[in-house]
Amino acid sequence: MKYAGKKALVSLSGGQDSTTCLFWAKREFEQVHAICFAYSQRHAIEIESARKVASLAGVELEVIDLGPIFAGLSPLTDKSRAVGHYESAAALPGGLEDTFVPGRNILFLTVAANRAYVVGADAIVLGVSQEDYGGYPDCRKSFIEAMQTALALGLDRELEIVTPLVLLDKRATVTLATELEGALEALAYSHTCYEGEFPPCGHCHACLLRQRGFDAAGIPDPLLVRARDVR
Amino acid sequence: MKYAGKKALVSLSGGQDSTTCLFWAKREFEQVHAICFAYSQRHAIEIESARKVASLAGVELEVIDLGPIFAGLSPLTDKSRAVGHYESAAALPGGLEDTFVPGRNILFLTVAANRAYVVGADAIVLGVSQEDYGGYPDCRKSFIEAMQTALALGLDRELEIVTPLVLLDKRATVTLATELEGALEALAYSHTCYEGEFPPCGHCHACLLRQRGFDAAGIPDPLLVRARDVR
Repeated sequence: MKYAGKKALVSLSGGQDSTTCLFWAKREFEQVHAICFAYSQRHAIEIESARKVASLAGVELEVIDLGPIFAGLSPLTDKSRAVGHYESAAALPGGLEDTFVPGRNILFLTVAANRAYVVGADAIVLGVSQEDYGGYPDCRKSFIEAMQTALALGLDRELEIVTPLVLLDKRATVTLATELEGALEALAYSHTCYEGEFPPCGHCHACLLRQRGFDAAGIPDPLLVRARDVR
Repeated sequence: MKYAGKKALVSLSGGQDSTTCLFWAKREFEQVHAICFAYSQRHAIEIESARKVASLAGVELEVIDLGPIFAGLSPLTDKSRAVGHYESAAALPGGLEDTFVPGRNILFLTVAANRAYVVGADAIVLGVSQEDYGGYPDCRKSFIEAMQTALALGLDRELEIVTPLVLLDKRATVTLATELEGALEALAYSHTCYEGEFPPCGHCHACLLRQRGFDAAGIPDPLLVRARDVR
């Protein structure tokens, strides 16, 4: 195993991808820490999801409060702006999503690198995916590689940024989750909806992509199963 | 002029180098914004210096509160640790300074990039210097270049990180300040001491390097002149 004896720091948002990454890291690494960011996001409910997911995984979680650190035009951080709603995944616009928070993953990786340095982690695990992120430039492999170089130079320490999902589409991510012990159960408590609602709104960019992935994999989304049970 | 018609965002700590950079940016750029970071630093007094310096320069300043964002072993962020004191600059140890805050400049550049994106700045101006920073790896030119690449990729926008002092020693930085209108007057209100004291302690790493630079340039430090007048 590539990461035998190694320590990972997982950036856990409480969403589908980072939840899957947490269980992947548990399988691949000797030790796993997790951090989660509060950044005055509209969907702060995801932090509670992160707590629940970490607890199900038996992993210690540090919630790092960044406050209203991001300026920008995204409805995720500016609550006076509306989140876009669409009929279906097929109706989603291409190009840069209006939910783009400039520098969000750059900042998350930077603070994660600080914590990795302090706890002696060998790798940061991040659930970005090139394909399914509405054109977010900070989810691309080329950015991740450049950032890894910058962090290693700035900290004068080797630090790998591991992105198990970067080349996977949402269907493949769902399939991966089915192979990871406990992941599907934890996904019932994950949060995805940009509106920050439970049950999820079902019509924002994030909800629609999640639904498309579970549909394509032919697996019922455990979050929606739980939502039905709650109603 | 290289930056004619361009907009700069200066990361202003309130210290000697960033104060000099602010006045340099005023000379070189069409428009100048400034930001300053509160990060629960021991020497939070520098934020008041930044306000005063920005006001003397006639530049708008945004103070960004990062809270206790940095974990680490540095006495700059962990007040239970003591700042090292030395007899003179000649007695300073080599290698990585114990005041190193892992990822500090990485984070500052990241948040600066977010603000630069939002205000449409073409460049971030940062007062790092390779030579005089006690071995901080995130002050090296190679790191700055790697970070510029990562930021441009992560934001999908050209953004230059301009470091006018990166190859200067402290003597040359003092000489530069004498050539910039208003800079020397503003330096009387800058803050350098790691202990966060005014008048400065005179024996920490930062005080000693500052003193060595003014001595080598043959110019009295306006901060010390002001300190004498206050006493």
